[in-house]
Amino acid sequence: MAVVPILSDEEAGAEALAIFDDIRARRQTDYVNHFWRALAADPALLKATWERLQQVMAPGALDPLVKEMIYIAVSVTNGCSYCIHSHTAAAQAKGMTPAQHGELMAVIAMASQTNALATALQVPVDERFLAEEGAG
Amino acid sequence: MAVVPILSDEEAGAEALAIFDDIRARRQTDYVNHFWRALAADPALLKATWERLQQVMAPGALDPLVKEMIYIAVSVTNGCSYCIHSHTAAAQAKGMTPAQHGELMAVIAMASQTNALATALQVPVDERFLAEEGAG
Amino acid sequence: MAVVPILSDEEAGAEALAIFDDIRARRQTDYVNHFWRALAADPALLKATWERLQQVMAPGALDPLVKEMIYIAVSVTNGCSYCIHSHTAAAQAKGMTPAQHGELMAVIAMASQTNALATALQVPVDERFLAEEGAG
Amino acid sequence: MAVVPILSDEEAGAEALAIFDDIRARRQTDYVNHFWRALAADPALLKATWERLQQVMAPGALDPLVKEMIYIAVSVTNGCSYCIHSHTAAAQAKGMTPAQHGELMAVIAMASQTNALATALQVPVDERFLAEEGAG
Amino acid sequence: MAVVPILSDEEAGAEALAIFDDIRARRQTDYVNHFWRALAADPALLKATWERLQQVMAPGALDPLVKEMIYIAVSVTNGCSYCIHSHTAAAQAKGMTPAQHGELMAVIAMASQTNALATALQVPVDERFLAEEGAG
Amino acid sequence: MAVVPILSDEEAGAEALAIFDDIRARRQTDYVNHFWRALAADPALLKATWERLQQVMAPGALDPLVKEMIYIAVSVTNGCSYCIHSHTAAAQAKGMTPAQHGELMAVIAMASQTNALATALQVPVDERFLAEEGAG
Repeated sequence: MAVVPILSDEEAGAEALAIFDDIRARRQTDYVNHFWRALAADPALLKATWERLQQVMAPGALDPLVKEMIYIAVSVTNGCSYCIHSHTAAAQAKGMTPAQHGELMAVIAMASQTNALATALQVPVDERFLAEEGAG
Repeated sequence: MAVVPILSDEEAGAEALAIFDDIRARRQTDYVNHFWRALAADPALLKATWERLQQVMAPGALDPLVKEMIYIAVSVTNGCSYCIHSHTAAAQAKGMTPAQHGELMAVIAMASQTNALATALQVPVDERFLAEEGAG
Repeated sequence: MAVVPILSDEEAGAEALAIFDDIRARRQTDYVNHFWRALAADPALLKATWERLQQVMAPGALDPLVKEMIYIAVSVTNGCSYCIHSHTAAAQAKGMTPAQHGELMAVIAMASQTNALATALQVPVDERFLAEEGAG
Repeated sequence: MAVVPILSDEEAGAEALAIFDDIRARRQTDYVNHFWRALAADPALLKATWERLQQVMAPGALDPLVKEMIYIAVSVTNGCSYCIHSHTAAAQAKGMTPAQHGELMAVIAMASQTNALATALQVPVDERFLAEEGAG
Repeated sequence: MAVVPILSDEEAGAEALAIFDDIRARRQTDYVNHFWRALAADPALLKATWERLQQVMAPGALDPLVKEMIYIAVSVTNGCSYCIHSHTAAAQAKGMTPAQHGELMAVIAMASQTNALATALQVPVDERFLAEEGAG
Repeated sequence: MAVVPILSDEEAGAEALAIFDDIRARRQTDYVNHFWRALAADPALLKATWERLQQVMAPGALDPLVKEMIYIAVSVTNGCSYCIHSHTAAAQAKGMTPAQHGELMAVIAMASQTNALATALQVPVDERFLAEEGAG
């Protein structure tokens, strides 16, 4: 179905394999999912994407599960089927309960609806929502 | 700028004013923002939207601030300028710190990027990400 | 393929089953389609979505078939495969002819094209297209 | 605000002026809106876009007002501010009542919401919604 | 999977067959792909789309391969699976190398990411990026 | 208009200023545009975004002007007003002629149109467009 081959370990080059090893080590699983195997034909893109993902999704001011739910919200709005599947699975692995999933769905649906209304009516932004401008 | 008038209290009908009163009471402010005033020409739509929003954004399995950040993620991906402004303000009012805002931005940017890659390469979904099917 | 189970009648809870019964009664068919079965794990979301849909799609100032065609236009633009299939089927059930479908396609294609051009050129809105502002 | 000049009659070339004349004649107004003036720097694109628009929006199996509402639905979903303004004005000029506008808003909001849910849950298409396949 | 039949040569009408013949002649292949067969039920739409495509994709100020890569970028951002597949194949047929494909992916991913950030932060446009306004 | 301050040099911290200096050096201009000043409140995000942009947009298998046009195509489809303005200006600075801009517009408009049609009709992908699958 892909427009590029999903490379097996045997088909991947040395640079890509090194990233696969890092994925396996950090995720403590032998399984490397299709997304990374699809990127493996371009090891520089694979490396840049994987490394940035590690930085961004690491625990910080936001909880890792919250980050996964934000990721799902973006993926749903973009209509990225692969991303919805993989990040819903990741959120579940990080403890998302069915009740949390249900509320996530409801917020995404609500936001999609009011986004459409605000855009359809071209509602002008209230002054109180604007930041103080600096150098702008 | 809007394609409909942003109704003042004097211009709004009785049904819309009743919703404005509810907005004021629940939000403990005298200010009714443009979105609701733009909907006021259609009181049934105003009422349905406001009431559903109250249900969806109420505390539940997810924290209200988390819900606001999910709302922002959807609004950014949809490119809804009004919604980004109003829900960023709402998240800040609920305590979102600059560090949390920064991480929210980073997750949204990361997801937008990997969404594009997964879509561009048409990566097939890994079987392990699929739910067990029931009646399907 | 779904990220949640598509619940059969046996798997659905009592609250969800009551909605399934309402769907069957109003649509005069025994068939309950996947969308509702996917929502059934969260009966509150199922109920709110179904009830609002009934209100919105009821005959009113717009013809029900016109409403279905508007629904298709939104679904195409959002790239929602499920929704395109189900609402095209619904429009056909409400009498959409091949000629009407063809014109619907042509309008959607035309709008997609001029939307892209207006956005690409960042054309400023003509003053005569703006509503008189009220409280704004 | 545009990334290209909005050409006045004096600035436009002969080919573009001929299209402006056709716009004036068919629309029975002296006013040529910004969209066409923004395209005027590329007369071939201006001509192809204007001529195709005339064909597509002409009365046919669908009513011209219905076509405008479908155009609005696409424009809202694409977030094209210019297009929302110009086609809402066009629909009003063709007789769209406030009640029809309100229902149009409600259908667009409803579709946006269920699109998000069907996509978020990755609901598989029901077999009965699929067309009989021919040469496929 | 389609919502309309994918017409074989036997099922297509005379007007559609004439377009199929033109596709075969210009592309120097006997194969007519599904997109055109799906449009064949509406010969006027088929004809208008095919003829405009020929004009737009012809060699001009931009190289045909560059045009295909721009087409891919739009299709990825719109999430059009069919279009991503067909135009990636077309770009490869026109000589796109794996290295060029990799860089195309990287630019699309980068743009998706900074688009999200600029939108999320609602960054105001710098004055120096605006065109001189003419008649606007 | 932004939801965050657009930081002046005086308001930016030392880490952000170091990136501003790098922007000035590489672009050989004293001007730092709003996008970077909006990111400056989060120096880690500013740094990661700027550095990755340099890598991605550097000359390689694709010409820098081609990369800018691909960037514009993504930005138009995402409706990112800021990005359309800044990358159109960048493309013009790299030598994009009005004729090239016109063809870019025409390709984006054409792709938007056929994307909508392929999605609306849910055209199934032709087998010949699929890559050979490897480990998938």
